[in-house]
Amino acid sequence: MAEKKLVEAITSMDEDFAQWYTDVVKKAELIEYTSVKGCMAIKPYGYAIWELIQKQLDERFKETGVENVYMPMFIPESLLQKEKDHVEGFAPEVAWVTHGGLTELQERLCVRPTSETLFCDFYKNDIHSYRDLPKVYNQWCSVVRWEKETRPFLRSREFLWQEGHTAHATMEEAEERTIQMLNLYADFCEQVLAIPVIKGKKTDKEKFAGAEATYTIEALMHDGKALQSGTSHNFGDGFAKAFGIQFTDKDNKLKYVYQTSWGMTTRLIGAIIMVHGDNSGLVLPPRVAPVQIMIIPIQQKKEGVLEMAYALRDRLGGFRVKVDDTDKSPGWKFSEQEMRGIPIRVEIGPKDIEAGRCVICRRDTHEKIEVRLEDLEEKADEILEQMQSDMLERARAHRDAHTHVATNMAELEDILNNEPGFVKAMWCGDQACEDQIKEKFAATSRCMPFEQEHLSDTCVCCGKPAKKMVYWGRAY
Amino acid sequence: MAEKKLVEAITSMDEDFAQWYTDVVKKAELIEYTSVKGCMAIKPYGYAIWELIQKQLDERFKETGVENVYMPMFIPESLLQKEKDHVEGFAPEVAWVTHGGLTELQERLCVRPTSETLFCDFYKNDIHSYRDLPKVYNQWCSVVRWEKETRPFLRSREFLWQEGHTAHATMEEAEERTIQMLNLYADFCEQVLAIPVIKGKKTDKEKFAGAEATYTIEALMHDGKALQSGTSHNFGDGFAKAFGIQFTDKDNKLKYVYQTSWGMTTRLIGAIIMVHGDNSGLVLPPRVAPVQIMIIPIQQKKEGVLEMAYALRDRLGGFRVKVDDTDKSPGWKFSEQEMRGIPIRVEIGPKDIEAGRCVICRRDTHEKIEVRLEDLEEKADEILEQMQSDMLERARAHRDAHTHVATNMAELEDILNNEPGFVKAMWCGDQACEDQIKEKFAATSRCMPFEQEHLSDTCVCCGKPAKKMVYWGRAY
Repeated sequence: MAEKKLVEAITSMDEDFAQWYTDVVKKAELIEYTSVKGCMAIKPYGYAIWELIQKQLDERFKETGVENVYMPMFIPESLLQKEKDHVEGFAPEVAWVTHGGLTELQERLCVRPTSETLFCDFYKNDIHSYRDLPKVYNQWCSVVRWEKETRPFLRSREFLWQEGHTAHATMEEAEERTIQMLNLYADFCEQVLAIPVIKGKKTDKEKFAGAEATYTIEALMHDGKALQSGTSHNFGDGFAKAFGIQFTDKDNKLKYVYQTSWGMTTRLIGAIIMVHGDNSGLVLPPRVAPVQIMIIPIQQKKEGVLEMAYALRDRLGGFRVKVDDTDKSPGWKFSEQEMRGIPIRVEIGPKDIEAGRCVICRRDTHEKIEVRLEDLEEKADEILEQMQSDMLERARAHRDAHTHVATNMAELEDILNNEPGFVKAMWCGDQACEDQIKEKFAATSRCMPFEQEHLSDTCVCCGKPAKKMVYWGRAY
Repeated sequence: MAEKKLVEAITSMDEDFAQWYTDVVKKAELIEYTSVKGCMAIKPYGYAIWELIQKQLDERFKETGVENVYMPMFIPESLLQKEKDHVEGFAPEVAWVTHGGLTELQERLCVRPTSETLFCDFYKNDIHSYRDLPKVYNQWCSVVRWEKETRPFLRSREFLWQEGHTAHATMEEAEERTIQMLNLYADFCEQVLAIPVIKGKKTDKEKFAGAEATYTIEALMHDGKALQSGTSHNFGDGFAKAFGIQFTDKDNKLKYVYQTSWGMTTRLIGAIIMVHGDNSGLVLPPRVAPVQIMIIPIQQKKEGVLEMAYALRDRLGGFRVKVDDTDKSPGWKFSEQEMRGIPIRVEIGPKDIEAGRCVICRRDTHEKIEVRLEDLEEKADEILEQMQSDMLERARAHRDAHTHVATNMAELEDILNNEPGFVKAMWCGDQACEDQIKEKFAATSRCMPFEQEHLSDTCVCCGKPAKKMVYWGRAY
């Protein structure tokens, strides 16, 4: 009865995907809504996922020479205005501080929506000579964007992220770092989050405010909508000129630096939910699961059962493991473990103990595997590894099955309306066509993928000669 | 010549301690000032110290069952006002957000100066039954207090910290957690930062706005001024009543929860500087040194020298170790290593290699120790351990030598004006005496230490019967 209620509380994903998402976010205890409109509280289980993301991403950053720093959370209005495109892009969506204590400020401060301007202001004083380059800095912090429509993890007024900001002596080096970080992001998504991504370049319409080029990784959610999962920007020397960031090069000439920035956010948790989740709740890839193994004793009041559960936990100490020894029924515990997406559960009862075995149940496939107790560590390790790679392959197969080709507007419309997913189509390079597709179908150009294909000779929209293949889609 | 310049750039600490502090903070490349008044940029070296503090403190938290979460950075004005004492304490020093994008907000939001109100608002909805207790949550974030006078690390408008917020079924359990965290802080300061602290309770005048009791750890800086280094508050059920946080207890009755909060900040970096630093710059305790060992090759252009330096670095892989292979002179490198407080340097040149030895120089004592190359790892480990404990003992001896006793106002005045340090003196418990001492001598009651002594029968100020021994001092 109780178990039924827990499971029934989730809307089916085929019935109402948005409601399913909200249900999972709440029932898996990832977040709670707050009295602060558009801002969420990240609960321990949700935050533990973020900590695992942070730790593994930060390690990868540091291997490439990234150093962490911390800049102020406020940007004086005059500083935000220094780069024209940048301020136009961000000013409409920032929060403004006008008073400090009881006093009105002489100059308004915005709460950082992103920190290019602060890093530029810092680099201007910190960089003098080619010996000071490159600067490869990153910060982990929260940023604020005054969004009207918000959804947990996907779009909120405040969110957590990392933002890397680098300065280089040459354009080539900046471009190299931009692509290096994009590749690092793509690799992280695939290897750690089990989410396959398309790597590509944004069109001018979709690029970051102030960037010369924006690169992106795009993932496909279970409902066929796209999610921009990380971006890496090459600024050329645009910001450097606006802020006056110059250095004396080896040839003794004064030159402007070339800059990049790149970021990933708590959005990734939304991506994990929407790529891997099912009608029983969350499904976490083992590498970001705060608990990888939940041991659930059966008939735990019988002598020796709990003791064995604890003994197995101790033997599995190399994993993130817990015993559910609460006084709930095993069925209820199964439902909770499934809702929270814990990769494997180990069922152990009196009969199992007698037979010297236990049952491992995989969260992604619901497969039950009998395991001899002496093989437990080895089997658990094997199953977690298998699950991690199966999840990636399943997500890749889903994405490939939901990637279509259109060569004209009728096909594009038909696919977008009937077969959710990515649509690959050729484009002339003219923003008018992008605008038209967005207006007609509410779909945007996701990226011009690095792996270009020749699908047809003409633009899907206007019929003029095509220049690029583009991934199109409706997006979060 | 160049070396000389680097060293000369620091003011002597005996000449002008405040200027010495500022010089060290800048020359050791811990921070940079920014265009945002009162806010600093924490540079890679400063941030790396903070990361080491975070990591070790967070591990200790988690061992006691703490779970990390993240609450919004904004507090609606109506929420801040719910607890009377709390709003009175904080409203005069918060930053107010009045506009989101182009729109004026219906209700002002302050940037969190601390998050009691947000946690209360969260707990009100999250706690229903005794089964939901205790809640032992913490968050790592930045907070804002609109200070007029600011100094790097010690007092800035934005600073980084952790804030723990817990909820319990009983007052006893809340008190136990309050003291547990204070002890954890004290132990962390001594074992990791090599800073001895006095543990005690704040007087009512000095306690946190809204707290029933505030406990503190107080450290003594090299100049004899005190620094409050961590606090732990017991709120009783005051906030619970103001916010309506109730739970159904085992006896089926509705009860208010009991709460605590506790925090430590980037101030600790200021404490490290002012407790351990000397006229050559920073001195870092090995456990929070981003680089523990700097290998400095002598005559590095001679064949085999750099190769040996790298080989030693690889052998010292268990430590945080670097080779300074820049083209600066060894003397310059020594100065930089000293300025940055790197605990030990290893000097290795052609003659050393020939003799199968190197020289280890301890940053704290400047002692030079000849070490046979085959003993290097073992010796380095031994010296770092020794240095860590010597630094603590030296700081303790300094504090003890600068702790005095006063039994009347004349003595108190004499000591405060002539012998910087803590003054132990008896107190009647009346706030009027605290006010008078503050007004006359600019000294405050630091705490009523747990280890009470009987120094005299009467209050140092008014001569009435004494109730408590208090540590007094001028403080940062």
